Amino acid sequence: MANSPSGESVISRVVRVMAAFDRDVPTMTLSGLARRAGLPLTTAHRLVDDLVLHGLIERLPDGNLRSGMRMWELAARGSRALNLRELALPFMDDVQAAVHQHTTLAVLDHGTVLYVERLSSPKSSLDAAHIAQRMPIHAASSGLVLLAFSPPGFQDEVLSGPLAPVTPETVVDPALIRKHLAEIRQRGYVALPGIGVTEWTGIAVPVFGPGKTIAAALNAIVPRQEAAVPVTVPALLTAANGISRALKASAVPRP
Amino acid sequence: MANSPSGESVISRVVRVMAAFDRDVPTMTLSGLARRAGLPLTTAHRLVDDLVLHGLIERLPDGNLRSGMRMWELAARGSRALNLRELALPFMDDVQAAVHQHTTLAVLDHGTVLYVERLSSPKSSLDAAHIAQRMPIHAASSGLVLLAFSPPGFQDEVLSGPLAPVTPETVVDPALIRKHLAEIRQRGYVALPGIGVTEWTGIAVPVFGPGKTIAAALNAIVPRQEAAVPVTVPALLTAANGISRALKASAVPRP
Repeated sequence: MANSPSGESVISRVVRVMAAFDRDVPTMTLSGLARRAGLPLTTAHRLVDDLVLHGLIERLPDGNLRSGMRMWELAARGSRALNLRELALPFMDDVQAAVHQHTTLAVLDHGTVLYVERLSSPKSSLDAAHIAQRMPIHAASSGLVLLAFSPPGFQDEVLSGPLAPVTPETVVDPALIRKHLAEIRQRGYVALPGIGVTEWTGIAVPVFGPGKTIAAALNAIVPRQEAAVPVTVPALLTAANGISRALKASAVPRP
Repeated sequence: MANSPSGESVISRVVRVMAAFDRDVPTMTLSGLARRAGLPLTTAHRLVDDLVLHGLIERLPDGNLRSGMRMWELAARGSRALNLRELALPFMDDVQAAVHQHTTLAVLDHGTVLYVERLSSPKSSLDAAHIAQRMPIHAASSGLVLLAFSPPGFQDEVLSGPLAPVTPETVVDPALIRKHLAEIRQRGYVALPGIGVTEWTGIAVPVFGPGKTIAAALNAIVPRQEAAVPVTVPALLTAANGISRALKASAVPRP
């Protein structure tokens, strides 16, 4: 509907504009925004005026543009990410208190891992796994846990697609990944050093929703030199059980 | 741009559709969504198809619709709300540990109070001040604190507008509100029982950004019968100082 001469819908262009804002570049000029969104300046100008009118983009006193509070509000209302993190936050606090490293909660969305929550530890120097960031499934401990408990059809789809390495240690051989997935199902956790970020080991465990469906992955990121895995796994498993129980209790019974 | 026969833009209709989802009704049928958004079914149908295509709305296995993870992700990237809560969360944890009641962080946006974070206490039975909810400025302790440190022109604007009561105790007399604002500036906090929710007292203190501009209000909500105010205020002031300091440290120096 309401397509441009190029046939692209308004919504598609809005997505391109909003995706131009990120953690590293949260504010920018109109011309910078047009460039990052890959839109002609006149198109970006008209679109931004309308988005500012509705509060989805804010214009700062210096003329720069920033993602608007109204955009965040619209997305947060009724958001699955927000409900999940509200339930999970107290348990994630407990993990962080025990482990003293970044603790994250991630889901699968559109074929990648999406981090919906992260509690940062002041003791961690790691600058990764930020909230609303994405990672390839095979290059994140959370992704491997989420994949291990996904339906076989989805596993086949992911493992038959391109599996690019993110670090020299990222496992990209589908047969080896399948071996890891079987181990995860048997052990209940994964701890592979350096597959997503060199120097760090991601340890992840599954969080289940109603009917034993996989709902999320709970993850702690520890320095790979440390012998932290044996003490971190029980903390994660305990917290994941708590989140799973809270998810089941909060589920609306369906007729 | 790209207006409907009624002259309404696509973006305006998208906002109406996304605003139909909220905490109480997070999933709905297409016809329910059209009704809540006030759109003809055929219009809603076309719009929803395009929003589903981009992941801004998700279609559940039972056919119901829900706000999409991609919508949340787009809003969260570069969001001021998210940066603020990341900085504030450890300090809010401290308040909650001391006070054992809901702790919220709020900002002014589009003439209302918008809650950007809430830590819930299992000890509190209060079902209010949810994340991404809004309240009238004069009917929330956070609103009065934010208003007290706002420019005089903005205060005049708010106090000359309609001031509807939310409870029988909401202060709606502009002269009396001005008296409260002066007291807040002098004392550094507000604690008014029942102005937003009967049976509860909101206690709020200011959080300042760079250059002593008001950035947010930190708030705890305590039962009004309890003599909690004298012990809660120091906890809030201490945490608000910490958040203000973190905000100033994180501000990118401007040339």
